[in-house]
Amino acid sequence: MTVVEAEFGGTRDLPALIGQMGLAARDASRQLATASADAKNTALRAAAAAIRADATQILAANAQDIATAEAAGLAAPQIDRARLDPDRLDAVARGLEDIADLDDPVGSTIAEWTRPNGLNIQRVRTPLGVVGVIYESRPNVTCDAGGLCLKAGNAVILRGGREAINTNRALHVAMVTGLRAASLPEASIQLIPTTDREAVGLMLRSAGLIDVIVPRGGKSLIARVQEEARMPVFAHLEGRCTVYVHAAADLDMARRITVNAKMRRTSICGSAETLLVDRAMADRLMKPILQDLFDAGCAVKGDAETVALDPRVQGADDADWDTEWLGPTISARLVDGIDQAIAHIRAHGSEHTDSIITEDDAAAEQFLTQVNSAIVMHNASTQYADGGEFGMGAEIGIATGKMHARGPVGVEQLCSFKYMVRGSGQARP
Amino acid sequence: MTVVEAEFGGTRDLPALIGQMGLAARDASRQLATASADAKNTALRAAAAAIRADATQILAANAQDIATAEAAGLAAPQIDRARLDPDRLDAVARGLEDIADLDDPVGSTIAEWTRPNGLNIQRVRTPLGVVGVIYESRPNVTCDAGGLCLKAGNAVILRGGREAINTNRALHVAMVTGLRAASLPEASIQLIPTTDREAVGLMLRSAGLIDVIVPRGGKSLIARVQEEARMPVFAHLEGRCTVYVHAAADLDMARRITVNAKMRRTSICGSAETLLVDRAMADRLMKPILQDLFDAGCAVKGDAETVALDPRVQGADDADWDTEWLGPTISARLVDGIDQAIAHIRAHGSEHTDSIITEDDAAAEQFLTQVNSAIVMHNASTQYADGGEFGMGAEIGIATGKMHARGPVGVEQLCSFKYMVRGSGQARP
Repeated sequence: MTVVEAEFGGTRDLPALIGQMGLAARDASRQLATASADAKNTALRAAAAAIRADATQILAANAQDIATAEAAGLAAPQIDRARLDPDRLDAVARGLEDIADLDDPVGSTIAEWTRPNGLNIQRVRTPLGVVGVIYESRPNVTCDAGGLCLKAGNAVILRGGREAINTNRALHVAMVTGLRAASLPEASIQLIPTTDREAVGLMLRSAGLIDVIVPRGGKSLIARVQEEARMPVFAHLEGRCTVYVHAAADLDMARRITVNAKMRRTSICGSAETLLVDRAMADRLMKPILQDLFDAGCAVKGDAETVALDPRVQGADDADWDTEWLGPTISARLVDGIDQAIAHIRAHGSEHTDSIITEDDAAAEQFLTQVNSAIVMHNASTQYADGGEFGMGAEIGIATGKMHARGPVGVEQLCSFKYMVRGSGQARP
Repeated sequence: MTVVEAEFGGTRDLPALIGQMGLAARDASRQLATASADAKNTALRAAAAAIRADATQILAANAQDIATAEAAGLAAPQIDRARLDPDRLDAVARGLEDIADLDDPVGSTIAEWTRPNGLNIQRVRTPLGVVGVIYESRPNVTCDAGGLCLKAGNAVILRGGREAINTNRALHVAMVTGLRAASLPEASIQLIPTTDREAVGLMLRSAGLIDVIVPRGGKSLIARVQEEARMPVFAHLEGRCTVYVHAAADLDMARRITVNAKMRRTSICGSAETLLVDRAMADRLMKPILQDLFDAGCAVKGDAETVALDPRVQGADDADWDTEWLGPTISARLVDGIDQAIAHIRAHGSEHTDSIITEDDAAAEQFLTQVNSAIVMHNASTQYADGGEFGMGAEIGIATGKMHARGPVGVEQLCSFKYMVRGSGQARP
């Protein structure tokens, strides 16, 4: 039993707990809104140092979680997502230091102009306030999300998954050590001490205390959050990404990019799940790409014409075009040119990331303009759909909604803004 | 019975109607996303021309609505909000022409950078998609909101108030005339043909078809929308705006700004509802300002010390500090300096617009930094909280939430964005 659980005498009044955490976060967020860049960076670096200093304890807590998961018979990929080893743990610490190295967005001027009547108007970045992060499996989120929110001047309430509860607690201790080192409020980063499912429901209903929810996890978690949340949600939906090899594609480029987009890491959201190739160039383009995919260990589900090109291709059924494989499988078909490719993406994509491979600039521009995804690419791999690759330093996830943040959600996207209007006595006529 | 109602044989299948309108809007939004600036502007100007050409019919429809409202015994201010006269109607037409004059935001580049690996990344503006506008009383919203959404490349579904149903239909006809003149889809701007309350509920549940809701109306409408909406809402909450007269304020400036902020137009959201004055300068500052307010016909509800300064001041009760008067009344009290002023605003304001009057720049900066409202001002009247005054040309409302849009919601804020990534064959290592 943790200190917090003991405080509640074993029988926890969960609504009271969540309410108190919310109020503490709201208070902390006011101080954080005006905290200096130095203070926040000190906290981040001190947390990183604490992670390294306490590596043995953190890894021991993780070993405890892994043993519990294995005894409970969880699937291997799920257990692996919860696992930390010395390398992964060091990456977590380095992630905090990377966030400290970022420019501080709070107070930065987004736009500025002066009106004919002399009023000077600035749009400046402010924190959002209090962020709620609800996540499964990956304990690194405790620090990645905690660190990003802090950098943007937000207080954060973390609710991690059951599989990593002890790991998350140990990592949270390191984050609080960092906050203390910088004399920042400890309630800046809080971890809900229970994995009671009802805690999630209470968070989602606390619109007066939490400003936005960031869910990181599987489909049923995201669906529940979107259904129940009374506040905005940074939806991180499926990454049904497509690579479209246009008739005017350079063959070598198309082969390299397609294999990289699918196989570099198959379980990330930027992994390509669908391959479209112009029918006019089926033999020249599709056949060699199929060969490369099979050589790389990928399975291919294809339309009848693609099956006819290579006997190793399995026949695709309708559902396969709407499937996020998250593994070494890709759906592939031929299309009659760019309009049909765009129509396919509109019908089956998830508005995440889609790429056209072509030497025809006009076709590229049509694709970039007409495909309404968070990220549209020309002659680049969909695996670049990542905050770090975008130069944001780090991200809390990739948002596929259209409000506030779209694509990688980095420090800037964890901010809101306000207008500062400086006058010299103007009264409106 | 309208054509649409007749189509449904008198018994309307409302869910089917809303569903069909949603699908038509979604289709239209795809075309609008790539419509040229010229086409949209042609539609806006042609709609303005149609309004002028059909002024007699539109005013007759309005007279019908006003007669119905008067017979139903609606309150005078509510009837006045629904009324159009030749001047107001011409302002509606001019509003559309003003929107046509604005730069087109769609496709504009917000930011651009090139990564060390050569990837060129642009963040470009895109439409949001389909906007749902739910409004009461003011028929001008049919054209203001319709025009702004169109300019930003969005399709819009309008649901107006019962009091102006015939006026809204007549204005909508003019908007469709404009769309036809530009060969843009007629479903770009749709008006729900019934004032059935259930239509609102159906809109709010259509998250797959409508991307964002803009409610314009009274508190109970806004509350219902926020409670039931399954999609993001541009909340336009109360304008409990405060003017804080700091001890170092210039007296003449403080008098002019305070009276303007309260009395220029008392029913708009930017009208000041609270006056705070530093206790140290009560006699020098508060007494003359009170005199000016009374001269202007304003009532004052004050704390005990303010009552003691002027016998015309009525005693304020607790609720008065949280009241949006929307009329010639202001709540006034003395404070012990800037920290207490900021604390009062945090406790009683609505995060809309707050202004400090002072010659002390350090105090001004503290106020601008620490007050977390959409608009914070120094030495300017809160009545400037307006898209037109900000140089945005026009606004659909003032958002007081912190996500996506904050403050005046103009054409840019009715946009989302996406990333265009241009490569030369990069595959991620």
